[in-house]
Amino acid sequence: MTYEILDRDKLPAYLAGLPTVVEVLGDCSTLQIDEIGDGNLNFVFRVSQAADKGRSVIVKQAVPYLRMAGDSWPLSRDRMTFEIRALRIYNDIVPSFVPKIYHADEEMSVVVMQTLMDHQVVRGQMIDGIRYANIGKDIGIFLAQTLFQTSSLGMGSLERRQLMDKFTLNSELCKLTEDFIFTFPYIDDPSNYSETGSTRYAQETLRRDGDYKRRVLRFKELFLTKTDALLHADLHTGSLMANHDETYVIDTEFAFFGPFGFDVGKIIANFLLSYTSHYYHKGGADYQRWLLNEAFNIWTVFEEEFLTLWAARESGDDDGDAALLSDGFLSDADLAAYKTEFMRRILQDAVGFCACSLARRTLGIAGVIDVRGIEDVETRTQLEIHNLKLSHLLLMEYDRIEDISQFRAMVENFYANTTLEPLGKWT
Amino acid sequence: MTYEILDRDKLPAYLAGLPTVVEVLGDCSTLQIDEIGDGNLNFVFRVSQAADKGRSVIVKQAVPYLRMAGDSWPLSRDRMTFEIRALRIYNDIVPSFVPKIYHADEEMSVVVMQTLMDHQVVRGQMIDGIRYANIGKDIGIFLAQTLFQTSSLGMGSLERRQLMDKFTLNSELCKLTEDFIFTFPYIDDPSNYSETGSTRYAQETLRRDGDYKRRVLRFKELFLTKTDALLHADLHTGSLMANHDETYVIDTEFAFFGPFGFDVGKIIANFLLSYTSHYYHKGGADYQRWLLNEAFNIWTVFEEEFLTLWAARESGDDDGDAALLSDGFLSDADLAAYKTEFMRRILQDAVGFCACSLARRTLGIAGVIDVRGIEDVETRTQLEIHNLKLSHLLLMEYDRIEDISQFRAMVENFYANTTLEPLGKWT
Repeated sequence: MTYEILDRDKLPAYLAGLPTVVEVLGDCSTLQIDEIGDGNLNFVFRVSQAADKGRSVIVKQAVPYLRMAGDSWPLSRDRMTFEIRALRIYNDIVPSFVPKIYHADEEMSVVVMQTLMDHQVVRGQMIDGIRYANIGKDIGIFLAQTLFQTSSLGMGSLERRQLMDKFTLNSELCKLTEDFIFTFPYIDDPSNYSETGSTRYAQETLRRDGDYKRRVLRFKELFLTKTDALLHADLHTGSLMANHDETYVIDTEFAFFGPFGFDVGKIIANFLLSYTSHYYHKGGADYQRWLLNEAFNIWTVFEEEFLTLWAARESGDDDGDAALLSDGFLSDADLAAYKTEFMRRILQDAVGFCACSLARRTLGIAGVIDVRGIEDVETRTQLEIHNLKLSHLLLMEYDRIEDISQFRAMVENFYANTTLEPLGKWT
Repeated sequence: MTYEILDRDKLPAYLAGLPTVVEVLGDCSTLQIDEIGDGNLNFVFRVSQAADKGRSVIVKQAVPYLRMAGDSWPLSRDRMTFEIRALRIYNDIVPSFVPKIYHADEEMSVVVMQTLMDHQVVRGQMIDGIRYANIGKDIGIFLAQTLFQTSSLGMGSLERRQLMDKFTLNSELCKLTEDFIFTFPYIDDPSNYSETGSTRYAQETLRRDGDYKRRVLRFKELFLTKTDALLHADLHTGSLMANHDETYVIDTEFAFFGPFGFDVGKIIANFLLSYTSHYYHKGGADYQRWLLNEAFNIWTVFEEEFLTLWAARESGDDDGDAALLSDGFLSDADLAAYKTEFMRRILQDAVGFCACSLARRTLGIAGVIDVRGIEDVETRTQLEIHNLKLSHLLLMEYDRIEDISQFRAMVENFYANTTLEPLGKWT
């Protein structure tokens, strides 16, 4: 159907024409429509049966401009095409971690999907000190499944290029990441956040540290040129919705084929940003310890699950093809050594991407509310600088990390032994 | 126009309908048509004006099967689509190194192009000991231009993804490389060459050397997942046509976005294969010295030209965009250090791909006539084993090579100090 923007007036008739949606909602003449927004890019509505809120769907539509900026900032609505494609693939690979799709239409740039009834966006919950028993484990499994199954270990060469072809042109959103994660935070760009003294701190440290910036470039280059697997590519705690039993991953519009470590490092960075923020928020040392346990558990579960999938592929249990590695190419001992190297490389890349995420969330336009929401400017500055120091440490050391215990020890040692910058020093 | 196979009977009428071709050929009722073949994949004709052979074109058409095997071996004629696309790009970037296109039609899987009147395929000429004064330099410039201009240093992010999108689906030919260069030679695959004792030598050495094979896998992984630049992807001395003034690159059907080092390493490997073959052919030590000079000159010129293009991009002289590196991101000193690292990584990758090429040309189905054409089985075996030893050395040492002088010293030392395997030992 030809593209048109669906507003409150047009939605009921549009939804009434979709049998799979009517099955969920029932009578489309008695709907309640709430615009819930995702803040930035798109229009998002929760549409429910007025007398039975349990019958509900989410309608998400892209408009041909940046929603938060209005039509003066054009942005192709192709992003919804990639969101739909990734969500379909995730529904195949990890159906329990993503909303069900009731209807999707690339022409209309719209997807109608499951309402997550009693799930909350994780970022805000973490600020409040809420613990989710399964969150690290769930994220680890999600990462292992999505990255393995779309990698050259998990797919044959021909089918993999077919799949890659569906994402090559997600150029606009890739460009946003290239600029906002890998470029602007490290230079004096006008788009950067500049409300606190952390800007001056960056100018006197990171932004003049050539070793650090060459390492940033290494990761930018990986982002631009490595096609390990289909990435979510925007996996942070604001892209997670959870309750105490389930974890869901949403907002897949950035999806493209990129380096393994990107999703892994970015989500771990968000746990570390929350950790730092709890020097101020009320979680205290106990909650900080829980955050670290979960952050490192993401990796531990990811690695275990990834290797389990790999073993199943070798044994032929899962009946699939693998572009990279054919049966019997290596002896058992060599295969084990190869796997150790392979996982170590993903870990090191994850640490590097984690470091870039820490810097961008501190210095760039898109901060995290965990820290940027702190009203007291001195405290905020202090915690921002702490995050920048952690970014620096991780980027300078990533290539010496051999396994998760070393990574964990490095981060624990940082938090235990690096004193918070004195209040007032940079304000 | 709808696809049909062009045979001798149909060619004149087809060509007569193409004004740009008629301009070259003149009257299409008096043509001489010679099938010249490229041996393997396609139909290739030289079509000339009978009374004036200077008026001539090459017609190359893909058929939906492997020409050498007949229609029992289906192979999509999409390969001609990628050949045409790459040839067009090369005509933009390096017009003096590729045939001019008179007409191209993706639907018909046909390209009509410039006849290289007095140029010879380089492989055969090298067997005869012919020297081309400019060949190393020409190849170096071709590589620098094509790789830089299609890399994230030479293009903006958005336009680069547009270009990548035109090559993602060249899957069938990528798969051939994955199998025939990176898999089969290292295992006992029935497709392998098995006419001489080099097979047994491989079984007792390389094929049971886990370190070596894990390194092969590293390069297979790069081939599968690194999209540094648009590669020719089949650049060997049989894809070069030269005379004493000019060097042309032909046969671009394997083109896709892959790792920088692949084209560089593969063409250098072909010079080394020729070197080894001249223990038997008549070139002697003088010709071998010339081959090494040219082989290493490929790298020297490539590096110089690549860095020249990079500097022009920075200064804004060429008015282009660059996805990876924005102006002023690094200080001059850090940029110089970054460039040194960047070129060293390309060199190391080239050495690794060179090592894989040496092994595949020795053990795989597609040998080089330089060696495989030697009738005396004992000598052939001896030289094959020499090439395998060189492959092993380079793959085990590639990551210790810091610059071209080290690479050169390693190869020279190998040839000077490794004795040829005794005749008869493996036969």
